[in-house]
Amino acid sequence: MPSKDQTFAADLPEPKRLLLESVLSCADANIDASLDRLFQFLRIPSVSCDPLYTPQCQEAASWLATELENIGFDASVRQTTGHPVVLAHRRLAIGPHILFYGHYDVQPVDPLDKWEADPFDPQLRMQPNGDTHIVARGASDDKGQLLTFIEACRAWKTVTGGLPISVSMFFEGEEESGSPSMDEFLDQAGEELRADVMLLCDTYLWNDAVPAVTVMFRGLLEEEVEITCANRDLHSGAYGNAARNPIQVLAELITSLRGERGAVAIDGFYDDVKEPGEELKSELKKLHFDADKFLQNAGLSQSAGDQAYSVLEQVWIRPSCEINGIAGGYYGDGLKTIIPSTAVAKISFRLVAGQDPEKIQAMFREHIRARMPADCTVKFTGLGGSKASVIPPNSQYLRRARAALKDEWNCESVLIGSGGSIPIVSVMQSRLSIDSLPIGFARSDNRHHSPNEKYDLSSFHKGIRSWIRILAELSGGK
Amino acid sequence: MPSKDQTFAADLPEPKRLLLESVLSCADANIDASLDRLFQFLRIPSVSCDPLYTPQCQEAASWLATELENIGFDASVRQTTGHPVVLAHRRLAIGPHILFYGHYDVQPVDPLDKWEADPFDPQLRMQPNGDTHIVARGASDDKGQLLTFIEACRAWKTVTGGLPISVSMFFEGEEESGSPSMDEFLDQAGEELRADVMLLCDTYLWNDAVPAVTVMFRGLLEEEVEITCANRDLHSGAYGNAARNPIQVLAELITSLRGERGAVAIDGFYDDVKEPGEELKSELKKLHFDADKFLQNAGLSQSAGDQAYSVLEQVWIRPSCEINGIAGGYYGDGLKTIIPSTAVAKISFRLVAGQDPEKIQAMFREHIRARMPADCTVKFTGLGGSKASVIPPNSQYLRRARAALKDEWNCESVLIGSGGSIPIVSVMQSRLSIDSLPIGFARSDNRHHSPNEKYDLSSFHKGIRSWIRILAELSGGK
Repeated sequence: MPSKDQTFAADLPEPKRLLLESVLSCADANIDASLDRLFQFLRIPSVSCDPLYTPQCQEAASWLATELENIGFDASVRQTTGHPVVLAHRRLAIGPHILFYGHYDVQPVDPLDKWEADPFDPQLRMQPNGDTHIVARGASDDKGQLLTFIEACRAWKTVTGGLPISVSMFFEGEEESGSPSMDEFLDQAGEELRADVMLLCDTYLWNDAVPAVTVMFRGLLEEEVEITCANRDLHSGAYGNAARNPIQVLAELITSLRGERGAVAIDGFYDDVKEPGEELKSELKKLHFDADKFLQNAGLSQSAGDQAYSVLEQVWIRPSCEINGIAGGYYGDGLKTIIPSTAVAKISFRLVAGQDPEKIQAMFREHIRARMPADCTVKFTGLGGSKASVIPPNSQYLRRARAALKDEWNCESVLIGSGGSIPIVSVMQSRLSIDSLPIGFARSDNRHHSPNEKYDLSSFHKGIRSWIRILAELSGGK
Repeated sequence: MPSKDQTFAADLPEPKRLLLESVLSCADANIDASLDRLFQFLRIPSVSCDPLYTPQCQEAASWLATELENIGFDASVRQTTGHPVVLAHRRLAIGPHILFYGHYDVQPVDPLDKWEADPFDPQLRMQPNGDTHIVARGASDDKGQLLTFIEACRAWKTVTGGLPISVSMFFEGEEESGSPSMDEFLDQAGEELRADVMLLCDTYLWNDAVPAVTVMFRGLLEEEVEITCANRDLHSGAYGNAARNPIQVLAELITSLRGERGAVAIDGFYDDVKEPGEELKSELKKLHFDADKFLQNAGLSQSAGDQAYSVLEQVWIRPSCEINGIAGGYYGDGLKTIIPSTAVAKISFRLVAGQDPEKIQAMFREHIRARMPADCTVKFTGLGGSKASVIPPNSQYLRRARAALKDEWNCESVLIGSGGSIPIVSVMQSRLSIDSLPIGFARSDNRHHSPNEKYDLSSFHKGIRSWIRILAELSGGK
């Protein structure tokens, strides 16, 4: 048995390769026990947004801490102003230090009647094509995914008595409800989370056979815009034509946000956009992204964004402006003949590398203010913002993780982008200058946030094996 | 005492003038009894839109029928598919036949906590300026106003034993909830309602000292427009830029409905508009309408409609297009990063003389369809329509009613328009070719549909006296 401080070289000489094979075999032999633990975890209804489930969130945190202690971690449940955080450390004397992030909370289960079974009574479902689905709320997002990492550590511990690399773990319980306590927690715990790289398992495979590392996330700026015209709702007969209608005003403002070609039409909006480097661009080209299929999946046939860019570029490397919601006047059954006093829209921008949320916010508000007609006032409410995150495509950690993935999946992993954000990625980048390696084994049909959420048993199993290999590779140094 | 069949000439020779004075004196002497009856009527909470008050609607109808029988009418409560109608007739052998329309139902009282007293416990409130307010739900709209006509008939009956002219009365109980049973009722009862002219008391004075006849009502076309893009709500990160956003589409469509100058920008929209004749235009000029004050009352300083027209023209004689409501995506607290699948708007057009609602509906739908981008579908739901109503400014009835009003108010009445509609006016015009004379004594501050609705005691009293004179004048023939 190697010592607890054993580290692995990237090139894995024979003894280390044999050891790795032993760890993988251990994980294979114990997959049923791993699955049992996942089922225990899934049975805890840790819905973070519903105060009714506060005790269950606490229970899920405690369950995690106990499991981590069982495999030699110094683990603790830390109370926050919301649901607790689980922190766990197992440090070696030398070598790099990785931090693994996940979340133990889950989405609500509504609509419950669309579930084929109790969302918190996990089921194994054999599929006609030979796949096996683990069906439960959280099966994939994120309980199943985060457990792949813990079970990888367990296998290392079982075979070697330790881990090949210093590992800290950090699990929050509010990811599905906007992480309201995160900032305060990080203020307190910040330095304790310092590491060389952060790993996450909250993303997707590129396809069933090809693993992916997500190296770009768009940032986000969220604004609420309320337009007020008259001092009260007016009768549309008495005032129709004469009174400024805030819905009409808001519609004209929204229209002004996009130009003919589909690009965002705010002056200076693209000024700071940094195009991805040639290396990443060439990686993206290799993906042979099927834009038609992507659009068809949503019932669409044409992209609506800037037509100078491909669909993949539009969603990953170009910023966007979306109207997420609008409300004004009467929208129940029938019709009320009013000219409302106010109308409101929720507008968000997906930002890319180089764009500063505060600067974009100022540009946006100036754009709106400059177009306000007489007798109208506008009220802006900022709903938050975050910068885009880009993981350097030339980092040693990325290179080593991809080597490990290639060994497990027998193919090159791909580098992909995400049109959305994982807030912790940009938070850790800006607070502690820690880059992330988001590697996930979810399939695109896993129904995150929807009824009958599932995780493939093969995702769970190959996920564990992938992390076992990644831990070995990363132990080789920066 | 004149015979029951007594009719009056328009020029009112001395004996008739003396008789008229007696009837007016009788009304004056009995104003407290009239007020008692109004209070009885106001105590019946005949809220038509709330099924809880169905018995009270029935009670209000019965109360009216009894009062009308007491003054010699052949009155009956007619059941409909909704709340009942009261019909009453008192016909003479010769002379014109007038129909008086009103509604006994009232608006709900919400918000109840804004009322200074029980809305169904009428109060007399002395004002610092010497006015006396009758405060209750329905005090003005329409119980107080309709009772002015009944009390006028009562005074005639008391003094002469009869009426100077054939009178039918027609009271509905669903005016405040869109008159859902009216069409079916008119199909059955239609011919029974035939008359030479219809009188209504559901409108306003021009100002406290000047009575008005409302001779133009705009028509209405109501449409709901639902835009659907993707087959489900999409994640705005995953699809932002690529997926067509139905709120953006709807905003652009709404923007296209009005041109730069504020005019409606639908091709052909104004083609059939009939400008009012010179006679009416010159009447409107005499009004010296204070547009600034009208706008200020709503907290506005500039009109939003077609700038080629005055504010008064914009609201009375020009058609409009208003967005009455809009909804799409998420509009609760915070933000949901979705691109919604659908967005919906309620859009209505106020129409003027010459415009056909069906033709305008077709133009509007064609306008929208022609502007639909790829991957979008539109669903239209017609919510109803009615033509504008114009009362010929040269009718004998109008001339005689204005003569009577001049005698009572010691000034010329004015002819005004209304930007809104009283549906029964256009219904009676189109079904039975009966023109209306809408004459009301409400003041602009009567708080119709709002808490602390009031009717001035002077409106009630001078209203009764006005109708006494109008009945005398109209009995003179066409």
